[in-house]
Amino acid sequence: MSEKAAKTALTPSTHTTPPAKFSHGVRKGNILQVAGQVGFAPAVPGEAPTPVGPGLREQTLRTFANVEAILREGGASWEDVVMIRVYLTDTAHFAEFNEIYNEFFADLTEAPAARTTVYVGLPAGLLVEIDALAVLG
Amino acid sequence: MSEKAAKTALTPSTHTTPPAKFSHGVRKGNILQVAGQVGFAPAVPGEAPTPVGPGLREQTLRTFANVEAILREGGASWEDVVMIRVYLTDTAHFAEFNEIYNEFFADLTEAPAARTTVYVGLPAGLLVEIDALAVLG
Amino acid sequence: MSEKAAKTALTPSTHTTPPAKFSHGVRKGNILQVAGQVGFAPAVPGEAPTPVGPGLREQTLRTFANVEAILREGGASWEDVVMIRVYLTDTAHFAEFNEIYNEFFADLTEAPAARTTVYVGLPAGLLVEIDALAVLG
Repeated sequence: MSEKAAKTALTPSTHTTPPAKFSHGVRKGNILQVAGQVGFAPAVPGEAPTPVGPGLREQTLRTFANVEAILREGGASWEDVVMIRVYLTDTAHFAEFNEIYNEFFADLTEAPAARTTVYVGLPAGLLVEIDALAVLG
Repeated sequence: MSEKAAKTALTPSTHTTPPAKFSHGVRKGNILQVAGQVGFAPAVPGEAPTPVGPGLREQTLRTFANVEAILREGGASWEDVVMIRVYLTDTAHFAEFNEIYNEFFADLTEAPAARTTVYVGLPAGLLVEIDALAVLG
Repeated sequence: MSEKAAKTALTPSTHTTPPAKFSHGVRKGNILQVAGQVGFAPAVPGEAPTPVGPGLREQTLRTFANVEAILREGGASWEDVVMIRVYLTDTAHFAEFNEIYNEFFADLTEAPAARTTVYVGLPAGLLVEIDALAVLG
């Protein structure tokens, strides 16, 4: 019964091939880890990924969609997420970010994930990066 | 035997309702994730959370207390913690922080948690933020 | 059969005693968490740890070696890692870092770990810090 759990890379069709030797998400056993996602528009073959619009709302919603695509690829949903790490670039964005966050997660039926929000540097043009840890039931 | 593990929000009485749709901590199966805690004084109904005193020591000890309250709410203790993430705002605080850290954890009987310490931006007035991952035995 | 999983500190011989009450790595059950590693040269008894050379490449490769030593101490390898957190200090380092990363992980046979890269402050002289979460099969 000590069968080795498979480790699976999660690569949704909306995502570009990762720019380095990492996976957009990984599932192993009941643990699913989503890599740091940003507000890139769905991948266009042959083109470099570009963030949607310059605003926090648009980027955040796109980032959520990118996280969600990886969760689904691994057979999970937001309901399975236990931790969301939020990286913003400006403390002045906190209130608006929370508004967007609350709207997005308004319909959760299970306990919302824990969250840590810190303010870091991100590549030019990016206002938000999010990763997530899910534990499947 | 593949019973679905319940996902439980951990909300100690010392804590305010989270300012957004997240949980202060979540337990699912044997995994307990504590959200980023700061040095907020115990919640006073109807008042916004405020950090205790301006100093690193006071804020750090209060932050530890806030993490601990969540661990306990989930049936865990510091002995179960495998990872502590520390966010400071100033590299000059590292030595003092470690002193406080060592005093606080002096009586651990199990292996201390792993730790990552990085320097980020935090909302005005906050000098330290800490989150923790516990694996229950 | 609900035997309590042991929590084990992982301290490779290449590492100094941690500068505070934390473990370089911890294994509990099938979860192995590596603490934030930097490019310190192998420990010399009685001397403070010092980073290898000033360059990103040298520091990154040393950091990988330090993470790897901890994984091995816990009976794991890079193949078991599900998440790698990368802390850089300068967005201008991203491209070079990815080159080094891709070379280092070129021979992985399982799905590469997920990854989050953010830009933070680190103590003077350090350009990169990395931690890792492994799930053993």
